[in-house]
Amino acid sequence: MSKSIKKIGVMTSGGDSPGMNAAIRSVVRTCAYYHVDCVGIYRGYEGMIEGDFKEMNARSVKGIINKGGTILKSARSKEFRTAEGRKIAYEKLKEQNIDALVVIGGDGSFTGAMIFNQEFGFPVMGIPGTIDNDIFGTTHTLGYDTALNTVVEVIDKIRDTASSHNRLFFVEVMGRDVGHIALNVGVGAGAEEILIPEENLGLDRLLESLRRSKRSGKSSSIVVVAEGDKIGKNVFELKDYVEENMTEYEVRVSVLGHMQRGGSPSCFDRVLASRMGVKAVESLLEGQTNYMVGLLNDKMALTPLDQAIKGQSKIDKELLRVSDIMTT
Amino acid sequence: MSKSIKKIGVMTSGGDSPGMNAAIRSVVRTCAYYHVDCVGIYRGYEGMIEGDFKEMNARSVKGIINKGGTILKSARSKEFRTAEGRKIAYEKLKEQNIDALVVIGGDGSFTGAMIFNQEFGFPVMGIPGTIDNDIFGTTHTLGYDTALNTVVEVIDKIRDTASSHNRLFFVEVMGRDVGHIALNVGVGAGAEEILIPEENLGLDRLLESLRRSKRSGKSSSIVVVAEGDKIGKNVFELKDYVEENMTEYEVRVSVLGHMQRGGSPSCFDRVLASRMGVKAVESLLEGQTNYMVGLLNDKMALTPLDQAIKGQSKIDKELLRVSDIMTT
Amino acid sequence: MSKSIKKIGVMTSGGDSPGMNAAIRSVVRTCAYYHVDCVGIYRGYEGMIEGDFKEMNARSVKGIINKGGTILKSARSKEFRTAEGRKIAYEKLKEQNIDALVVIGGDGSFTGAMIFNQEFGFPVMGIPGTIDNDIFGTTHTLGYDTALNTVVEVIDKIRDTASSHNRLFFVEVMGRDVGHIALNVGVGAGAEEILIPEENLGLDRLLESLRRSKRSGKSSSIVVVAEGDKIGKNVFELKDYVEENMTEYEVRVSVLGHMQRGGSPSCFDRVLASRMGVKAVESLLEGQTNYMVGLLNDKMALTPLDQAIKGQSKIDKELLRVSDIMTT
Amino acid sequence: MSKSIKKIGVMTSGGDSPGMNAAIRSVVRTCAYYHVDCVGIYRGYEGMIEGDFKEMNARSVKGIINKGGTILKSARSKEFRTAEGRKIAYEKLKEQNIDALVVIGGDGSFTGAMIFNQEFGFPVMGIPGTIDNDIFGTTHTLGYDTALNTVVEVIDKIRDTASSHNRLFFVEVMGRDVGHIALNVGVGAGAEEILIPEENLGLDRLLESLRRSKRSGKSSSIVVVAEGDKIGKNVFELKDYVEENMTEYEVRVSVLGHMQRGGSPSCFDRVLASRMGVKAVESLLEGQTNYMVGLLNDKMALTPLDQAIKGQSKIDKELLRVSDIMTT
Repeated sequence: MSKSIKKIGVMTSGGDSPGMNAAIRSVVRTCAYYHVDCVGIYRGYEGMIEGDFKEMNARSVKGIINKGGTILKSARSKEFRTAEGRKIAYEKLKEQNIDALVVIGGDGSFTGAMIFNQEFGFPVMGIPGTIDNDIFGTTHTLGYDTALNTVVEVIDKIRDTASSHNRLFFVEVMGRDVGHIALNVGVGAGAEEILIPEENLGLDRLLESLRRSKRSGKSSSIVVVAEGDKIGKNVFELKDYVEENMTEYEVRVSVLGHMQRGGSPSCFDRVLASRMGVKAVESLLEGQTNYMVGLLNDKMALTPLDQAIKGQSKIDKELLRVSDIMTT
Repeated sequence: MSKSIKKIGVMTSGGDSPGMNAAIRSVVRTCAYYHVDCVGIYRGYEGMIEGDFKEMNARSVKGIINKGGTILKSARSKEFRTAEGRKIAYEKLKEQNIDALVVIGGDGSFTGAMIFNQEFGFPVMGIPGTIDNDIFGTTHTLGYDTALNTVVEVIDKIRDTASSHNRLFFVEVMGRDVGHIALNVGVGAGAEEILIPEENLGLDRLLESLRRSKRSGKSSSIVVVAEGDKIGKNVFELKDYVEENMTEYEVRVSVLGHMQRGGSPSCFDRVLASRMGVKAVESLLEGQTNYMVGLLNDKMALTPLDQAIKGQSKIDKELLRVSDIMTT
Repeated sequence: MSKSIKKIGVMTSGGDSPGMNAAIRSVVRTCAYYHVDCVGIYRGYEGMIEGDFKEMNARSVKGIINKGGTILKSARSKEFRTAEGRKIAYEKLKEQNIDALVVIGGDGSFTGAMIFNQEFGFPVMGIPGTIDNDIFGTTHTLGYDTALNTVVEVIDKIRDTASSHNRLFFVEVMGRDVGHIALNVGVGAGAEEILIPEENLGLDRLLESLRRSKRSGKSSSIVVVAEGDKIGKNVFELKDYVEENMTEYEVRVSVLGHMQRGGSPSCFDRVLASRMGVKAVESLLEGQTNYMVGLLNDKMALTPLDQAIKGQSKIDKELLRVSDIMTT
Repeated sequence: MSKSIKKIGVMTSGGDSPGMNAAIRSVVRTCAYYHVDCVGIYRGYEGMIEGDFKEMNARSVKGIINKGGTILKSARSKEFRTAEGRKIAYEKLKEQNIDALVVIGGDGSFTGAMIFNQEFGFPVMGIPGTIDNDIFGTTHTLGYDTALNTVVEVIDKIRDTASSHNRLFFVEVMGRDVGHIALNVGVGAGAEEILIPEENLGLDRLLESLRRSKRSGKSSSIVVVAEGDKIGKNVFELKDYVEENMTEYEVRVSVLGHMQRGGSPSCFDRVLASRMGVKAVESLLEGQTNYMVGLLNDKMALTPLDQAIKGQSKIDKELLRVSDIMTT
């Protein structure tokens, strides 16, 4: 074990996601297990620059494993994007004798960590926390599984009212660059059509698909749309377009928005967070740095931060095919 | 017991709400209990005109007490608003030897029932089913309690992300004419401010309240806004206005929309539906007509349909005061 | 307003229930609103005797409105049942200049409060917090509505497996003296039979009812049994008895137990807690003492503590009748 | 594609689990996609012997993806264990021109399928459906993920009441032979100790662990116990033992039982079921037989039925270690 690391800082950064608190708890408890001090850094890089720190022990993380959000709060920091800002941050860490960092967040947070490591040789370890599952080097990011359940339950509710009224619903879910959420909840909620950034179905084929669904006797339809869908119209424009071109349906729109980020984490996310926290601390103590902890083939694995950032999280082709079969 | 009623028709009409299925089940089982035939009428008045009927017995309503939506479906009918349409509907009912109607729905549905009764002397009984709780003659409409829980759970999730990022959220909930949902979920979710149709807080006082909340050390705020709020701006305009006038917060908007109508009914709504179904059938069998079944002082009570329609469902003044104390 | 009350103590006592935290929050915030100090007393009367107190303000109750359990914890105190114990408790309160008490709990807690008031003339106000709804003077105790939803959701899950296997389940729910929970969840979950303390169905009629249910084509049955049911056998003995006397069913037992007490409170319970907290503090400030705050005819009402304790919370006869009709 | 398969039978067998309906739906829809007929076989092998069949199409599986239990019902069949019984079953299938079988179930169901295949050369394909996750050849069985969430949510509720009263709870969860559920929910719910069949902690070390937990300042403790735990005492005996040997805690027991099998499947289970159904049908059409469909390294994979039955589903050693670190 690396003798040089005696105090680890832990922070959350970027958009919050369910499981972040469970990961904080795991980092703190693993530090305690290895008799290493642990410091919570509030509000991400912003709090780091301001020296907004707090010593943490097992008591500090009591009762948070099942809470959404992050007790360390999160923020975006413009100052940390400047060399001056990072210099101040580095000094604040040194003042507190913090030897290494665990950064829980997404792409942007990891980029900051990597640059920080390059500039100061500061040991950093990333834990992927975002509901979008858009990080390379892990099959699951923290919060993704919870978000899938949250969204599927909401669509189940929308289905109640859709099928009571013979309506067509466009339901917009998160996913600017990747369609993981849309594809999985689309299959999971039995959606009639799924629009994701990775595929441009095209307006003609969408209409065709909806007409076929209608002809086959379906009285209601739900189309799941990822935010970043490339069909060329936002979800409200889609509604107008379909209403102009199909008179068979009353069309409604539901934009799920921020509720997708909240809620008590699923068992899967709590366990994943616990595993990732242990792996992150142990990896730092073993002298590893500049990696992201991930889940690959059901095991903990390290991916260099630059690969995690540059690599692409790809949609599962087999699931796309399953989706086609299920929606035909 | 009225000897003339041997077959009762039951239908749902207008917007669907959780508990409608439980009410259908209760009507059907109560008819069976009293050895009266029961016919389900699909898609409200539209299905009545089309003769879209189905005999129902205890088997038909198996496993639906906990399902959202309505197995009889619902629709709005233009034709029923014409004398010709109602004539056809009446004939369809007579063809099937249906002697009386239980109409589960809201204002509009009851107006139809009342006119139908006036024109043909046809026995009708209303059961208030709508999440808005905007019907006079009952403290609770079917689905209202469920919707409160649905919304409160969603706001709890939004709170997770709001408090992780020091954000202000405007959350728009249902309620065009009355603020029951907004007021109750606002108190129940610990909202910092509640905007309802019954009161115009005014933009100045809203800003003042948000500033006071911020000064008191709160890092996040949630403002619950009823659809029909009279502050003069829609929820997206409100966001822009506050962002222009307060730099302390990042502001976000969440419009909850149709998910509020769905979901498995709460125990309260299932029990209320069961009670209302029994009361509706028994009242018809006792020769009553043109009433709505309601809950008043925790007991089943009948209110004439015209009063139910014209009367106003008023916000609870004491709860308004509680809300003021809780949000100060 | 009573000038003599400048500091109010608040405590939870007896079994915990969802909504207790929301009530604590309401008491604390109402005190703040009226510029009265508020002190939290930990672990009920035990903590009172030990002087386990903490000043509370709006910050202290942040984020607890949606949490189950009680942040002030609860305990049973043998010492408080002695005159010496109560003397010590009184002195501890005086040391801290506490002028009045809000006691959130059930029968036993109120009895303690009443004796305390008799002995020392100390102003006390009760808030009924128990899932059993077994208190006179309120149609709803705090936590009751939440427990109904918790139990109904569990029975829905048991129904999944019961109907997949043609099984009979006995589900034991809380309720030693009254059958409120059993009766309501029995109706709400569509149980085939409901056994409550208020009625002794008798073993013969139970068998007869189960046989009739089986003959009518039902492939699964759920019998809800209140803990305090008077049929003369516990739920496991019932299982054996039915298996000996009916070969048609495989029988299973599920004892729901303590999970019924936990969970995030329903919107109804949160609102009720908020109303009760305001009413309790305002009543004390108006000089009232020795009352319990309750909900009667949908309004806040005071009932003398001795009546609340001695009076009987009776099962709703009309709901019993509804239950009979639904299960026939 | 195999030309010989024109009609596929699908059945559920053994204990039900969430996701079985989603799997049935997927099998039916995949058959429709490939223009192959599909027949539902009711009540497992028992219904097969009785010829309790029903043609199924996309309409038949409408609205079931989110329902717990199994619409085809399940049963255990003594007769199918005899050569005569299986002969009759085979003839019933031939009468209906059923060419191949998809069996959704666990160990016992697969053994039946394998013998059936051996005796009659009948093409069979297994889909692992059981909450216990005790099948070799798949990292996840259908219903396992859902059960984890169900149990974790219940333990969260029990935690509310445990921490309000400084109590120790023994919570018994399913798992006769393997501790997957106990280990994962133990970690996920932050349990203080986890007792699983794979490890015999021993009574002394259990007491020691509970004492250490108490000394460290914890006021409540939750011990998760798998049904098949080897500590030598059942959960009620454990309670007595601990109460005799530790006076620090009030001890309570909660046996979760059958509710763990029910409920709407998680998104993960719905998607997994959809994938497995497609894979099962496609594998049969490609001429494969006597395999189980599973999830290995996040991809669909086939495992010979005899290996699936004989192989051991092993607990994750790394998670055991995580559990040790989290509970220290």
